[in-house]
Amino acid sequence: MKTNNNITIGVIGGGQLGKMLIQKAMQWSVPINILDKDKDCVASVYAHQHIVNDIQSEVGLDELASSCDIMTYEIEHTNTQKLIALEREGKTIIPSPYALEIIQDKGKQKLFYQMHKIPTADFFIAKNKEDLKIKLQEFDSDKVVIKSCTGGYDGKGVYINDRKIIIENIDIVPFDASVMVEKFVSCKAEIAVLAVQDTFGNRQTYPAIEMDFDKHSNLVSYLHSPADIPIHIEEQAKEIALNCLKAFNSAGLFAIEFFLSQDLQLYVNEIAPRPHNSAHHTIEGFYTSQYEQLLRILLKLPLGKTDLKMPCAMLNIVAGKNQEGSYQLKYLEKLVDMKGVYVHLYGKKLAKPNRKLGHVTICLPTKEEVLHNANIIKNLLEIEIIH
Amino acid sequence: MKTNNNITIGVIGGGQLGKMLIQKAMQWSVPINILDKDKDCVASVYAHQHIVNDIQSEVGLDELASSCDIMTYEIEHTNTQKLIALEREGKTIIPSPYALEIIQDKGKQKLFYQMHKIPTADFFIAKNKEDLKIKLQEFDSDKVVIKSCTGGYDGKGVYINDRKIIIENIDIVPFDASVMVEKFVSCKAEIAVLAVQDTFGNRQTYPAIEMDFDKHSNLVSYLHSPADIPIHIEEQAKEIALNCLKAFNSAGLFAIEFFLSQDLQLYVNEIAPRPHNSAHHTIEGFYTSQYEQLLRILLKLPLGKTDLKMPCAMLNIVAGKNQEGSYQLKYLEKLVDMKGVYVHLYGKKLAKPNRKLGHVTICLPTKEEVLHNANIIKNLLEIEIIH
Repeated sequence: MKTNNNITIGVIGGGQLGKMLIQKAMQWSVPINILDKDKDCVASVYAHQHIVNDIQSEVGLDELASSCDIMTYEIEHTNTQKLIALEREGKTIIPSPYALEIIQDKGKQKLFYQMHKIPTADFFIAKNKEDLKIKLQEFDSDKVVIKSCTGGYDGKGVYINDRKIIIENIDIVPFDASVMVEKFVSCKAEIAVLAVQDTFGNRQTYPAIEMDFDKHSNLVSYLHSPADIPIHIEEQAKEIALNCLKAFNSAGLFAIEFFLSQDLQLYVNEIAPRPHNSAHHTIEGFYTSQYEQLLRILLKLPLGKTDLKMPCAMLNIVAGKNQEGSYQLKYLEKLVDMKGVYVHLYGKKLAKPNRKLGHVTICLPTKEEVLHNANIIKNLLEIEIIH
Repeated sequence: MKTNNNITIGVIGGGQLGKMLIQKAMQWSVPINILDKDKDCVASVYAHQHIVNDIQSEVGLDELASSCDIMTYEIEHTNTQKLIALEREGKTIIPSPYALEIIQDKGKQKLFYQMHKIPTADFFIAKNKEDLKIKLQEFDSDKVVIKSCTGGYDGKGVYINDRKIIIENIDIVPFDASVMVEKFVSCKAEIAVLAVQDTFGNRQTYPAIEMDFDKHSNLVSYLHSPADIPIHIEEQAKEIALNCLKAFNSAGLFAIEFFLSQDLQLYVNEIAPRPHNSAHHTIEGFYTSQYEQLLRILLKLPLGKTDLKMPCAMLNIVAGKNQEGSYQLKYLEKLVDMKGVYVHLYGKKLAKPNRKLGHVTICLPTKEEVLHNANIIKNLLEIEIIH
């Protein structure tokens, strides 16, 4: 981006991640075109061009490719084969479609970790329920996690139960396609590290963020950074994250989620090759937000500094299990009246059960203030359905 | 803004201030419509609706008014009479068109200060050159500042010289319309305070920002906050700023520029009733940016905290006297490689002499680091004209 107007970025997907990327790109006046079948997707209004087509569509991807100089994606469920073909034709796509192809399939992802000696929970892959039942009998774990190899998203396509119960009632498993089965890791903490690589091969990691679980519901109540883990564990996590980058050998943002077991072992859980929910706090809390970092990579600018500016926490605004329709954030006024609290509302027209509708970041000079406010705010994120 | 989608803001003008307002409004998914005769104005792509018409046009203003729930402006040179008529018809316009009417005319502005006992340099108003010559003869100041009462902008319409020289060569003054003439204040410093008022009458001020002048060229080289002035002077400036708000009795953002004389007297120079260049540093450096603050006021949300997060400085990126055409920022890569440096490029297609093309904010933990970097960066803001 030597000049202001001559590089156009094409983004596959027009959800909140694409929208927040555009919001940052406005600062440098970099035009962004999007591909999304929903003509009302939240990024639509702000995109320079919105190609209304499915993110799987070859025609749509061709159209996006010809409208821009460089491509990226904000969602994994796109047509990797078509992206590989476009790359062969000379289009630059960041991160590499080969990395995406691995990540799209939870089985391939685990095999990839194994091959590159990236620590991850023991696992096996099963083709169908019969195969699953046989392999479960030999698997050394009381409790197991079963994930649909493809198509899972935001906790969908994941099933957790005792191995023996599943063996006795194999139809309890809600999917029959190819599955990846792994040992359930009893966690001391769950953390995530954002690792980034530019097109010249330079690599950086962000400080870890830790997910804080509610003791009663066992649901994530907020994420916070710095994480409450020993420094040497954080250093280990960063090293593993850099090894993941080396293994993928691709420019881009990679959000790497870890389990930290009770005996302080780190296991890579999943990787997302795009801006990620676990790094939203970088917008206000860090010198370089994940969106700016992605722009820098796409525009061949130097990577931005990954230091924390202030301790911060992030909470998602999610519709409840039975909430559907037009909505409002019940305590918006209370929230925006608190110092260092940044409300993000994605502009989705309708709430749907468990749909992410926004997030809140808290940035304050001390970790104590941040956590104190996070605990107040987790009770203020109620969505109200209106007529 | 109890709901996410039901308030639309109409902005008169679609320049960089409108664009940065939209950038912030994206965070809450608040739709913004703009009125600007330039179909390629920098806010155009990001506005929900762009009404392409002159900001003086009654038809255009009517169209904007019917497209939105509440109106504001990002430039003063609009049709105040029409805005007053719209307000009478029940439209909410923030800040009040009556405040704008006073501010639009430099003579009225000074009379207003006088009436409300707001300290300002001694002045008189002259209708034409003849009147000017007569009144200058009786005016008690060696050096005077002559400002065209209407139509000035960014230093245009301002003439400074010795009183006696002007009297002897009255045609040296480059304008013949109504002028406001004031005593030249020999400044120790120039500062600005952003003062804000919500629709409920609550008022807040931001910490002062100080303009730093280059000792050789006497041009502003950067602005920085906190300002290097005694605390009691800053408190006085804030009190005067609050008195200005009380005098205008209007909701909105008011950027108040002061001269601090050698004998530490404060004089209000000018007031802008809108987001202002002197408050761009609030985007990264403060808990609440000027744009978020304006949105809060328009949406009837509580005012945001006006505390500084980190010491900061702001430098404008301005085309040189002879620079015209397509351009690039010569040292963009160097700039974005520095920690805590935020480059904003407004996306104007062409450079024109002295045109503001962007700005750079520096935010770092200590004032020393900020000023050190500001002095490096002031030499890195060169614009290159490209074919």
